[in-house]
Amino acid sequence: MKKLWGGRFNDKNSDITEKLSVSVHYDKRLYRQDIRGSIVHSEMLNKIGILSDEELGKIINGLNEIQMEIENNSFDFEDRLEDVHMNIESRLTDKIGYAGKKMHTGRSRNDQIALDTRLYLKDECCEIDKHLVRLIRSLMDLAEKNKYVILPGYTHMQVAQPVRFSHHMLAYCWQLVRDRRRLDFARNSSDYSPIGVGALAGVNYGNDRHFMQQKLEFGNITQNSMDTVSDRDYMLDFLYFASVLGTHLSRFCEELVLWSSSQFDFIRLSDKVTTGSSIMPQKKNPDLAEIIRGKTGRLNGNLVSLLTVLKGLPMTYNRDLQEDKESLFDSVDTVLLSLEGMIEMMKDITVKKDKMRDAVYSNFSTATDLADYLSQKGVPFREAHEIIGTIVGDCEKNNIDFFKMKFSDFQKYSEVFQEDVLDYVNPESSTDRKISFGGTSIYDIDRQLEELRKLL
Amino acid sequence: MKKLWGGRFNDKNSDITEKLSVSVHYDKRLYRQDIRGSIVHSEMLNKIGILSDEELGKIINGLNEIQMEIENNSFDFEDRLEDVHMNIESRLTDKIGYAGKKMHTGRSRNDQIALDTRLYLKDECCEIDKHLVRLIRSLMDLAEKNKYVILPGYTHMQVAQPVRFSHHMLAYCWQLVRDRRRLDFARNSSDYSPIGVGALAGVNYGNDRHFMQQKLEFGNITQNSMDTVSDRDYMLDFLYFASVLGTHLSRFCEELVLWSSSQFDFIRLSDKVTTGSSIMPQKKNPDLAEIIRGKTGRLNGNLVSLLTVLKGLPMTYNRDLQEDKESLFDSVDTVLLSLEGMIEMMKDITVKKDKMRDAVYSNFSTATDLADYLSQKGVPFREAHEIIGTIVGDCEKNNIDFFKMKFSDFQKYSEVFQEDVLDYVNPESSTDRKISFGGTSIYDIDRQLEELRKLL
Amino acid sequence: MKKLWGGRFNDKNSDITEKLSVSVHYDKRLYRQDIRGSIVHSEMLNKIGILSDEELGKIINGLNEIQMEIENNSFDFEDRLEDVHMNIESRLTDKIGYAGKKMHTGRSRNDQIALDTRLYLKDECCEIDKHLVRLIRSLMDLAEKNKYVILPGYTHMQVAQPVRFSHHMLAYCWQLVRDRRRLDFARNSSDYSPIGVGALAGVNYGNDRHFMQQKLEFGNITQNSMDTVSDRDYMLDFLYFASVLGTHLSRFCEELVLWSSSQFDFIRLSDKVTTGSSIMPQKKNPDLAEIIRGKTGRLNGNLVSLLTVLKGLPMTYNRDLQEDKESLFDSVDTVLLSLEGMIEMMKDITVKKDKMRDAVYSNFSTATDLADYLSQKGVPFREAHEIIGTIVGDCEKNNIDFFKMKFSDFQKYSEVFQEDVLDYVNPESSTDRKISFGGTSIYDIDRQLEELRKLL
Amino acid sequence: MKKLWGGRFNDKNSDITEKLSVSVHYDKRLYRQDIRGSIVHSEMLNKIGILSDEELGKIINGLNEIQMEIENNSFDFEDRLEDVHMNIESRLTDKIGYAGKKMHTGRSRNDQIALDTRLYLKDECCEIDKHLVRLIRSLMDLAEKNKYVILPGYTHMQVAQPVRFSHHMLAYCWQLVRDRRRLDFARNSSDYSPIGVGALAGVNYGNDRHFMQQKLEFGNITQNSMDTVSDRDYMLDFLYFASVLGTHLSRFCEELVLWSSSQFDFIRLSDKVTTGSSIMPQKKNPDLAEIIRGKTGRLNGNLVSLLTVLKGLPMTYNRDLQEDKESLFDSVDTVLLSLEGMIEMMKDITVKKDKMRDAVYSNFSTATDLADYLSQKGVPFREAHEIIGTIVGDCEKNNIDFFKMKFSDFQKYSEVFQEDVLDYVNPESSTDRKISFGGTSIYDIDRQLEELRKLL
Repeated sequence: MKKLWGGRFNDKNSDITEKLSVSVHYDKRLYRQDIRGSIVHSEMLNKIGILSDEELGKIINGLNEIQMEIENNSFDFEDRLEDVHMNIESRLTDKIGYAGKKMHTGRSRNDQIALDTRLYLKDECCEIDKHLVRLIRSLMDLAEKNKYVILPGYTHMQVAQPVRFSHHMLAYCWQLVRDRRRLDFARNSSDYSPIGVGALAGVNYGNDRHFMQQKLEFGNITQNSMDTVSDRDYMLDFLYFASVLGTHLSRFCEELVLWSSSQFDFIRLSDKVTTGSSIMPQKKNPDLAEIIRGKTGRLNGNLVSLLTVLKGLPMTYNRDLQEDKESLFDSVDTVLLSLEGMIEMMKDITVKKDKMRDAVYSNFSTATDLADYLSQKGVPFREAHEIIGTIVGDCEKNNIDFFKMKFSDFQKYSEVFQEDVLDYVNPESSTDRKISFGGTSIYDIDRQLEELRKLL
Repeated sequence: MKKLWGGRFNDKNSDITEKLSVSVHYDKRLYRQDIRGSIVHSEMLNKIGILSDEELGKIINGLNEIQMEIENNSFDFEDRLEDVHMNIESRLTDKIGYAGKKMHTGRSRNDQIALDTRLYLKDECCEIDKHLVRLIRSLMDLAEKNKYVILPGYTHMQVAQPVRFSHHMLAYCWQLVRDRRRLDFARNSSDYSPIGVGALAGVNYGNDRHFMQQKLEFGNITQNSMDTVSDRDYMLDFLYFASVLGTHLSRFCEELVLWSSSQFDFIRLSDKVTTGSSIMPQKKNPDLAEIIRGKTGRLNGNLVSLLTVLKGLPMTYNRDLQEDKESLFDSVDTVLLSLEGMIEMMKDITVKKDKMRDAVYSNFSTATDLADYLSQKGVPFREAHEIIGTIVGDCEKNNIDFFKMKFSDFQKYSEVFQEDVLDYVNPESSTDRKISFGGTSIYDIDRQLEELRKLL
Repeated sequence: MKKLWGGRFNDKNSDITEKLSVSVHYDKRLYRQDIRGSIVHSEMLNKIGILSDEELGKIINGLNEIQMEIENNSFDFEDRLEDVHMNIESRLTDKIGYAGKKMHTGRSRNDQIALDTRLYLKDECCEIDKHLVRLIRSLMDLAEKNKYVILPGYTHMQVAQPVRFSHHMLAYCWQLVRDRRRLDFARNSSDYSPIGVGALAGVNYGNDRHFMQQKLEFGNITQNSMDTVSDRDYMLDFLYFASVLGTHLSRFCEELVLWSSSQFDFIRLSDKVTTGSSIMPQKKNPDLAEIIRGKTGRLNGNLVSLLTVLKGLPMTYNRDLQEDKESLFDSVDTVLLSLEGMIEMMKDITVKKDKMRDAVYSNFSTATDLADYLSQKGVPFREAHEIIGTIVGDCEKNNIDFFKMKFSDFQKYSEVFQEDVLDYVNPESSTDRKISFGGTSIYDIDRQLEELRKLL
Repeated sequence: MKKLWGGRFNDKNSDITEKLSVSVHYDKRLYRQDIRGSIVHSEMLNKIGILSDEELGKIINGLNEIQMEIENNSFDFEDRLEDVHMNIESRLTDKIGYAGKKMHTGRSRNDQIALDTRLYLKDECCEIDKHLVRLIRSLMDLAEKNKYVILPGYTHMQVAQPVRFSHHMLAYCWQLVRDRRRLDFARNSSDYSPIGVGALAGVNYGNDRHFMQQKLEFGNITQNSMDTVSDRDYMLDFLYFASVLGTHLSRFCEELVLWSSSQFDFIRLSDKVTTGSSIMPQKKNPDLAEIIRGKTGRLNGNLVSLLTVLKGLPMTYNRDLQEDKESLFDSVDTVLLSLEGMIEMMKDITVKKDKMRDAVYSNFSTATDLADYLSQKGVPFREAHEIIGTIVGDCEKNNIDFFKMKFSDFQKYSEVFQEDVLDYVNPESSTDRKISFGGTSIYDIDRQLEELRKLL
């Protein structure tokens, strides 16, 4: 078949040109957006008198039929028609003849692809946000159910201070709250109607871009035709959101993997989300957590990919931009899969509260509380720090259980110690003394839960 | 000197440990934020009764003196004190004794560094936004001054349709408007007060975090202590903003470089922003544009750097996070320098309107208008496209000047052509026929300018 | 079906676990390598007495049949069997029963996947190298055919000195010669036989790894079982090769795009590799060059992707490593497509030698030669540079054609000028005066061609 | 001062242009290479008769004096002279007058900077290689000293099979052996003499590039002048080497951090390489390991940075290339610091062999051996796997110590078990049964050590 742009061309494209030009194998996923855009474009052409009511009717029927064909898998996407736009347009013309050709009036693939990807991204952002909310909710549930469980809080992977498991889970919730903001930013970036700017300069008649904007439910409209066809910021914004989310999940999954190890043994992931080994019968591998952690790679890669494509590109549309879609689709899919995986893992997770508690007790997790204790009794903090450092050192050397030390034992180190010191050594008490806003006290955990509920 | 944390340690750190741990050579740039935070923290300690008025007075005086010492270059930052916090705190204790030590009550370097960098970033975002506004204004001025100048609009680096130079400049303005949104997002991400969360779990007394938030003019407050000390999203948001801005500038600079070449010769950059060659006497190199284009590299690198650092880090603070600051500072500096460079280049740019106009006329820049013309007279667009394709081909083959073709010449190709076709060939008329919203007509350019003025 | 590792598992995996675990939709492309490895592994088992001759015969027949089934598209890859290994093994057991199960003795998927990807990469490196050689040859042909054509050599996109087009093409050849070295390095990295190391620790019997190495034609053998199953350096080496090649091609394509623009108009790309516009009838877009330039994005992205995956992974095999293959396959495919595209573009490229020559003559391309001239006659170079700078300035101001200046004109600027100055102004003479090794003289171009021929 | 290229320029550069153009604050580190190159270039000019012996003598003396001035810190690098080349050349001319100017004959900054960075990189590669060798040696020592220590080998962070600690250390040695190969590749890439190619086209006289190559001890010479001044592959090769090394070290450090945690408690890092907490007295943080792990970020960032800079740059030299050096220097410094840090950590590491052994015994680490046992007695592997899976499950359910099971206990599960089963449960025996080449048997560990010794 002759290309639609073939007028001046004598030779047909070579195979490799076709192979490198074709995008329908991946951009066909935009068929719904493409059809929706074509219908609204046609309605506008009808409104300003370019298409008759009859032509409009034919077009809408034709496009609806095509959508059904696609959804019934009876539509045959053809590589030689290059992309989703040409596949649909060509089929429409086959179906309804001349009116199909007229539909293309005042439109170019440059604004068409911007429209399709913007509509697509807005849809997917909604879908992803639902997943984010579900994940936050499941973390909140987990926190509620295990509100009082204590485990060591780590800095530098060293036991630092006891914290509530619920507080730890809420830390992840707040990360995800920020991810929702970034997602919302990406959604807003997409929410500018590009349709009707033509190939780059605008079009030769008073098309009604605001009419189309409203029909397509865009919150805003793009302001400059050249910018519109060369802009891919909205995609970058999404790819960036995805990278940061992926980074967050990689951190969470790192902890799930560690906690599932026999050295930590803090949690048990359910059989539904773990796998065994084909040769080691005792293994129970946290594959899901590992795979999601690994997915950060492709999310970062996709961001770098589009940034590289755009670097140094002059105005306006350049064919390099064809390379934007696969990384976008891949990040969308990856985010959705990863979130589903996270939700599934959270569902049946077993919190081994005894093991967590043991870990708190087998380390000097409340040493800082003791330093604070002395400090509150008037000992300069740096001095208090040294006293406790000595106690810790002695316990280590002489194999003494820090949590079983008696009042009299403490007094050997400083006379400032009173009987209430034993309360300060206690990890549960320790967490509830963290009364500062945002601290790990039960009181604040309830406050955080309340605050999160308001945000969902 | 003994380290502040040295209690249990027998050996002192080896040289390489010191070398890798020290950060004061770059984090000293946070001294103002660090001092500001320490003052507010001390005011809070005074408010809740931990510091007396006298102690507070000493601390504030001491810190103010230190700030002056630093700004007079009479402060000696020492590597062995590792970072800016310890350098200032140690100097304060030298000056005022015990009260200086007390200042550290209920504070850790984990929340202190979060505070300093958040304050720093908020300041820099304001500064950068001013530069962005200045650059947009200078582009708008340039557009105003050259409103009617036409040049070829390109797609695929091929002459596509004539556009107004002003429209082209405004395209860049709209990019920068989006950059301001991203910058604002980064600023908002930074605008959460972290101070008072302690090392990771909260602190043991009712510090007044909201008091400190207000004093430090933060719009919001962080909600979870563990999240607070491990969160670097606000830095990522800035680094991402910087990458996209850099990408935009790389595209703009690419055009400036091309337009300065003798093949295009569309503009002349002033002597102030170009350099010659030490061996080629005729050269006038657009160095500034090239360097700014090249700066995209480090901006992308800095983003990748922090994403890599964060990947897979478990909660909460890990020393890896020390690696966050150099890339942040470098991106801040790079953005400011690049924007200054852009503003400087725009100042004295010479728009060679004749050369631009010639380029419009030496190509078939209004071929599409003719196709539109036929289409409006009822010829199906695809057929119109072919007719014009044939005309273009004949002109090329027979070396005919497309813009000098007469009415009769056109009629040979189709009887639909009327005398008014000559108006459709004219590039100036062409641009003003682009009456769609956001198109390159003078009318819309004025509208865009008006719209932009509202946003600044 | 029960999983092969299902012994201790009560619940079956949830859908999302299956979805995230499955890799057969992309790793099935390794079927040939997987079968080849299984045959050699079985031969080894036979050699050391674990498989009987009959069993070995059955296995080899079975595997060969499976390979035919796959190549006839009659093999049904099933997601529930997760990966290519399990799909083939399961089918084999269906076919030949017990012997199929025995084949898995002393083998794990950890070394199996290392084997498959290493074999795969070695194959693909050979294929890619052939393409590189073809591209170099086609550039050499182009250089030969247009050996004497001159065009401006640019620095800073400013006309600097005249060069031969052939010299310019050879510059790209030398880049590609380096790419071949990098490819060879990646091939060598892959050329270590991993088979037989077991899951991580080695295996419990004297398998003959050197026998398998030889049979599989590996040049080397891996030395440490733990390293073997966690190593992905050989993939990184390939991804890096691909990134640099992509960067080189992006630079070349940038020039092809510029040279195809009407401002440069130095070349004409054939209809076979360009496309038109669906709305602008005069367009002839260098799509192939643009797409290949854009492909750098994904190549860099793939490299960043695997680097991110590997960051911070502890020993030995972690499921994150599943994420290595898609980026690898994508870079392999992209490199092959890009090289094919380049070769195709070079085939019918039209070198517009008059346009190139005009560009040399419409700039002060030999100004440096004049400075050299004066310098050789004893004028200090910096002074000579200034004299020529003045001449250039005067020509510009008074619109004088530099190349038409007479001997007497030159003498006005310095008495050092003799009649032979006119030869120094001449661009062709200029290029042949570049007699230094590696310079643009015809003599050296012939030398380079000769040198390149030796390398192919 | 007037710029050296100022002939045609009326205005002087604005401040921001100077600020963006200046590179001397970082490229001054190339002073030795720059001086060395200038001396050899002058010797060549003398050899071909352009410089007299007297002039050459003056130049060499002058340059040597300058080198001493720099090394005594009495040399004043000035920003207005832009880069290291101009600073040195200008000082030389101050010192010796006219001959200093003559030295620049037939040379450009384009080949000069290529020379300096290539010489620099060759030097640094040697230095880095020494560090790599030292690190490998210290790992080998550690392996020798703890040859028989057993610890769990992990896959998926789950205990998989017992391995020797020495085997684990050697796994890292083999990684580093590959890093040395990549480093060698980078060194070879740098080992091409670029000097004498001029600005881009070659020079106008028979300079003797081979003479200079020999004097500068380059193994090879660049073949094409245009390629020479635009090539940055040798830098990429180094940056890539650094990224992979950083990735390896990040993996190693991840393990050091985990092993130092109280959950693992496998090692004790010395006080020399750990730090305490300013508020938590019990902490002993593996800062060095964390910082080195974090350094991967900047190494990856630097690679992405230069890849981004180069993307789409046309021939030949473009000023964007100025952006190559800072990332290069940073990666060189980072690699050296990281390696020093690693060596220091290895020096006094305490291997807690009892804790490692306990971890082997508190998991079912030899379950796979039992499956192998049954398999060797004729039970199909998949069936054996299931039997052992059941045993493991029963132990878990009934809290039975797997390693204390008696012969009779095993027989309940299968009659195939004989008394020798107890030997198969034993972890030490297990490791020595891994007799395959590259396995964790002592025999093979000795072989690996021998092999490594040969490579150093």
